[in-house]
Amino acid sequence: MSMRSLGIELHCRCIQTESKPIGRHIEKVELIPANSHCEETEIIATLKKTGEEVCLDPEAPWVKRVIQRILSNRRR
Amino acid sequence: MSMRSLGIELHCRCIQTESKPIGRHIEKVELIPANSHCEETEIIATLKKTGEEVCLDPEAPWVKRVIQRILSNRRR
Repeated sequence: MSMRSLGIELHCRCIQTESKPIGRHIEKVELIPANSHCEETEIIATLKKTGEEVCLDPEAPWVKRVIQRILSNRRR
Repeated sequence: MSMRSLGIELHCRCIQTESKPIGRHIEKVELIPANSHCEETEIIATLKKTGEEVCLDPEAPWVKRVIQRILSNRRR
């Protein structure tokens, strides 16, 4: 059984990140800490309606704001 | 086709949250903003090794610290 078939990612999942502030379209956000397979933190948002997965830039101010808003449980 | 079979959750996913600080065992964290089916933000961590999913308390200081650490891309 390969590592991949075990669902273990062996590389970074994000190639490029979304630059537009799409906070209001986000259904959920996945935070993947840096690990042995990817030296950058990765943030992957799943969009409402389409279910599309979009990578976000952990350094972008609007991304940080969206995450703080989710954590503080404020409605949009 | 039911809402559930479309992968849409119709209720909160978390019943109870982990009280022990398990930050170092976290492989990834899912943030689910409050929505029409669940009025609380939910934070679900997937653990390394076991892949077990554990709900975290968004209000717990150690949970906030773990998320800030992931966002700032600091190694554990």
